[in-house]
Amino acid sequence: MGADFTVTLLNGRKTDVYFLSTIKELSAKLSAYGRRVLWVFDSNSAALFTNLPANSVILPSGEKNKTFSSIEKIISAALDAHLSRDSVFIGFGGGVVCDMTAFAASVFMRGCSLILVPTTLLCMVDASIGGKSAIDFKGGKNLIGTFYPAKDVLISSACLRTLPQQEFISGMGEVIKHAFLTEDDALYDFLVKNRNAILKKDRETVSEMVNMSLRVKASYIERDPEEKLGIRQALNLGHTFAHALETTANFSIKHGIAVAWGLSRAAYCGAELGITSRELQEKIDSLLSLYSYDIPYRIGRGEWLDFYSSVGKDKKRLQGGVKFVLLEAQGRPVLRELEQNLVKSAVISAPSRIS
Amino acid sequence: MGADFTVTLLNGRKTDVYFLSTIKELSAKLSAYGRRVLWVFDSNSAALFTNLPANSVILPSGEKNKTFSSIEKIISAALDAHLSRDSVFIGFGGGVVCDMTAFAASVFMRGCSLILVPTTLLCMVDASIGGKSAIDFKGGKNLIGTFYPAKDVLISSACLRTLPQQEFISGMGEVIKHAFLTEDDALYDFLVKNRNAILKKDRETVSEMVNMSLRVKASYIERDPEEKLGIRQALNLGHTFAHALETTANFSIKHGIAVAWGLSRAAYCGAELGITSRELQEKIDSLLSLYSYDIPYRIGRGEWLDFYSSVGKDKKRLQGGVKFVLLEAQGRPVLRELEQNLVKSAVISAPSRIS
Repeated sequence: MGADFTVTLLNGRKTDVYFLSTIKELSAKLSAYGRRVLWVFDSNSAALFTNLPANSVILPSGEKNKTFSSIEKIISAALDAHLSRDSVFIGFGGGVVCDMTAFAASVFMRGCSLILVPTTLLCMVDASIGGKSAIDFKGGKNLIGTFYPAKDVLISSACLRTLPQQEFISGMGEVIKHAFLTEDDALYDFLVKNRNAILKKDRETVSEMVNMSLRVKASYIERDPEEKLGIRQALNLGHTFAHALETTANFSIKHGIAVAWGLSRAAYCGAELGITSRELQEKIDSLLSLYSYDIPYRIGRGEWLDFYSSVGKDKKRLQGGVKFVLLEAQGRPVLRELEQNLVKSAVISAPSRIS
Repeated sequence: MGADFTVTLLNGRKTDVYFLSTIKELSAKLSAYGRRVLWVFDSNSAALFTNLPANSVILPSGEKNKTFSSIEKIISAALDAHLSRDSVFIGFGGGVVCDMTAFAASVFMRGCSLILVPTTLLCMVDASIGGKSAIDFKGGKNLIGTFYPAKDVLISSACLRTLPQQEFISGMGEVIKHAFLTEDDALYDFLVKNRNAILKKDRETVSEMVNMSLRVKASYIERDPEEKLGIRQALNLGHTFAHALETTANFSIKHGIAVAWGLSRAAYCGAELGITSRELQEKIDSLLSLYSYDIPYRIGRGEWLDFYSSVGKDKKRLQGGVKFVLLEAQGRPVLRELEQNLVKSAVISAPSRIS
């Protein structure tokens, strides 16, 4: 069975993406990887199985376990199973599991094969392609990692059946972001037209949506696989606002929900600067409202200092200031430093319209 | 100042190799990397400095410290120094320091710049180019690592002044191996002609020798950077014997000295099979004797089982049997599985000649 599409990344490495309608089809595809395989789950994704396959390792779920110690667990399990460089690691779960399995696969005997089976919408549309593996370190998110694309990504919307609705809505934040990172209105129109089927997690509809969304992401990473050319950074649209909000809220707000809010804040700033048209800003906000995101949400005045210092933390990563992604037009992202006052007006007071 | 030569590796990545005659020239080159730099030493290489540079981390010396915990130390030091993805890690020392600095640089924020300054002959001719970073794990040597070529390798034979003679002789084992991995007799002739100057560590002579030796290594890794095509494996000439000897001797025999012995054992096996000419076998053994290696050394009969099980351990790494590197001719390596009896006759009894 041929891949549904292929992403070409570093050094000629390719990721084949497969869409599998049913759990049965997914299982058939998985069993074809043979027996020199290590499965990595977290406690949530392991619960999808009645009987776990041989050579399985189950990590405790949650971001706080995204550490060297989990990597050691994965590699120890691979050694216990007598696996070597010609073996296959299968990461089966959400973003944390997939990021860690990818990191472990990239360093085990200097690299073995990697297969990812994302089981959350966020991971399907975001972490599964692009080759960014990671663990956290000393409070720094994704501070340690490698660029190591999966050989295959297997996507089955059937895996989403048991996903809590809030997690699903979180993933939709990244999907909507992708809709505005392409000049083509196909994904945007699809999201407007199929809102109800999407929110009911209708398998075929969600599958088509993920497919369209991934193709937008792929178009950026293929042009700048190691994020060195200022192209891939566009995928951070909304993320500088989102990261600061997540930190200020002590991670009680889900990532994709923060991204949706950040997308709206970036549109506001772009519009205030005359970079983004008011029409595009409205288009963004109304799609976000259609999916019931709390776009009018603002942080309290007392949270501003925390928020702005979180924005500044990204600064340490690069010489020079923090660059926000803004939209010159739909599908035309630009990187801009923003004045503190503009950021402040975007996040703590109601946006004032010129018109 | 241009590089003396350039090795082209993965994904268009290049390693520039610089030969610097004096410590003064080396210091000048190093200071040009600016201030966003982290230096990594071990206790031996740190002793070469009267005053250590700012942002230095000193690891305890020795293979037993080649662990995740040392990697955490390096990365913590980088964070303490507020370094980021645009910074430079400088590994200054022998193979252990260089392998670990390379691994840390490859995973810190998914990769920062790497400069290596090898201070042992073994590291100059072996670990410094080729992009293999590594740490040990659960008794497995180099079990975890990445392919991550250094941007620059700075070689100054002036660093060898304080290197113990046994360490120098160990490095010569790899140099002599390289002499037989090229059809060109230039390195071989150089080694025969300049024995005394080399063993006295004459700076210019050693520098020229390292340069010639590295170019042989580079010719293999450029054709097969990730050791996937069966070409780079040729650099393991003598190593299957060497690793088993090192293990059997509980690592009391230095790596390059074991490699020299292994090279002679591989030549013997090749000759017994009619793959290697007796002339080439003699040429190898006589060059090794010129450098005073103990070529007649054989393991005791009581050590055979240990030795052969160590040979077998490499087997786990790949499906199928252990492949030894043999020479069809000088510069023409081939991979062959060997019968147990042949290996036994090579390592525990005096070689019997047909003629």
